[in-house]
Amino acid sequence: MSAEVLSGKGLAGLIRQRAQEEAHALDSQGVRPTVAVVVATDDESTHWYVRSIERAAERAGIDCRIVDLGHDATEQVLAAVLRDLSAEASVHGIILQTPLPSGVRADSLVGLIAPEKDIDGANPLSLGRLAVGQPAFAPATARAVVELLDHFEVPTAGRNVVVVGRSAVVGKPLSLLLLAKDATVTVCHSRSGALEPFTRPADVVVVAAGRTGLLTGSHVTEKTVVVDVGTNVLPDGSLVGDVDEASVSGVAAALTPVPGGVGSVTTALLLLHTTEAARRQARVTGGTVPAVQPVPAGAA
Amino acid sequence: MSAEVLSGKGLAGLIRQRAQEEAHALDSQGVRPTVAVVVATDDESTHWYVRSIERAAERAGIDCRIVDLGHDATEQVLAAVLRDLSAEASVHGIILQTPLPSGVRADSLVGLIAPEKDIDGANPLSLGRLAVGQPAFAPATARAVVELLDHFEVPTAGRNVVVVGRSAVVGKPLSLLLLAKDATVTVCHSRSGALEPFTRPADVVVVAAGRTGLLTGSHVTEKTVVVDVGTNVLPDGSLVGDVDEASVSGVAAALTPVPGGVGSVTTALLLLHTTEAARRQARVTGGTVPAVQPVPAGAA
Repeated sequence: MSAEVLSGKGLAGLIRQRAQEEAHALDSQGVRPTVAVVVATDDESTHWYVRSIERAAERAGIDCRIVDLGHDATEQVLAAVLRDLSAEASVHGIILQTPLPSGVRADSLVGLIAPEKDIDGANPLSLGRLAVGQPAFAPATARAVVELLDHFEVPTAGRNVVVVGRSAVVGKPLSLLLLAKDATVTVCHSRSGALEPFTRPADVVVVAAGRTGLLTGSHVTEKTVVVDVGTNVLPDGSLVGDVDEASVSGVAAALTPVPGGVGSVTTALLLLHTTEAARRQARVTGGTVPAVQPVPAGAA
Repeated sequence: MSAEVLSGKGLAGLIRQRAQEEAHALDSQGVRPTVAVVVATDDESTHWYVRSIERAAERAGIDCRIVDLGHDATEQVLAAVLRDLSAEASVHGIILQTPLPSGVRADSLVGLIAPEKDIDGANPLSLGRLAVGQPAFAPATARAVVELLDHFEVPTAGRNVVVVGRSAVVGKPLSLLLLAKDATVTVCHSRSGALEPFTRPADVVVVAAGRTGLLTGSHVTEKTVVVDVGTNVLPDGSLVGDVDEASVSGVAAALTPVPGGVGSVTTALLLLHTTEAARRQARVTGGTVPAVQPVPAGAA
């Protein structure tokens, strides 16, 4: 027996297509969806990732403005740039790319991203709005997990879902999204001790701890659907998740691969969030753009 | 066997005393801690509750300003009052009391409470800041649960804690506070189905669902510590929690009573939050007030 592989590529393609249609519709009404990515690092892999967003955006008809402030940018400069972009009408989405220069407090900077442009859910206000059910962008990774489960018609309402990891970027916002979908949600983390008592009875286990080999075959049953959010780079440069694929795939019902799982969907969602942000802002400023269609669940 | 009764009265007394000492210290430096309670209802029990806050505040040396806008106050008037109070330097804490007039959207109003004056954690930004570990006031009820557990030296780090209820006022902020204390946290709710599989293995069960008799003896074991956040008024006017006390107290290790449990601590914490807010605001405006002492755990 081998777990069903829940690839993110089909869904990512659908989402990119939706973003492209949206961008085209907005463009024909004089609104060019635009995302700004603020970068302040020399890290090669970060620049590679930002360029991949830029290429994907361009293919979808979305303008991507990379604001490279260099690895020695000060907090003051970063703050001023985020304030300017938040105020600039032609920019609809803002991403503050990590890592930031040492000594710069990301905490205080993310609060400067206008909530309606916060397409990667970095501002604590976005998280708070998600918690109380007000409109807000979730971090794209957290939404990617929910969209993947919907796409493969994995039920979550009334189901036992365990999230391993309590970060502000994945674990916490994901638990809020899952609660809103009527799942019973357990958040485990590095201080939880043995995970088996929580993960084995679970219908769905999402692993977002940033630790290679954290989830093994002994943590799951033949009924478990496993979503792997981990992205760990091995010394040889290859990318692996938090799941020990060899042992888990022999036991679990289904498993998202790394790469080609959650990550693919995440980038596509950043594009869709940009068009959603552009649409809302166009409407606020008097636009008459038709409503966004939801991503079709289970299609493709 | 009968469950240990974890009364909130001793802790409430300690917290009120701390608030009073703080208020006195601030007063001697020219800062009179002041809380404004905005009311827009004719509901008798709400007015009774607000007067009880007023009396407790006065006894602690805190000014309580009740802003009664009447049961037909419009959203515009409420918004204007919240903006004014947020801007007024002599007001340190703001409570928007529910219920509000029908048609008034609490959602948009709570966002107008300045975060540094949001002593009952009603603004979504407060919730978001809690989630990312930034300084913020939790809803007093949520903090009351955590303070009660600390006071009775109930360990939570690495323990299995189940919260029944997912409200923005208790369930969600409480789950964030418990995660920050290294608990493994499960949130159950009305769509969770049978609760036993979650509550029986738990070390601590917190019930905040607003449903009489929700938790019974069959949901717990002799090791379970039960915290009852429910406040349900019976037709005869008496107050009961969400726990079926008769059956649970025969099984569980410990149980907080209703009344006299979480509720007592909540009101006291509103006073302490007011002095904490006054101290922070005094510091920002150039005050030189000494640091706040934590509430002693396990004392009294």
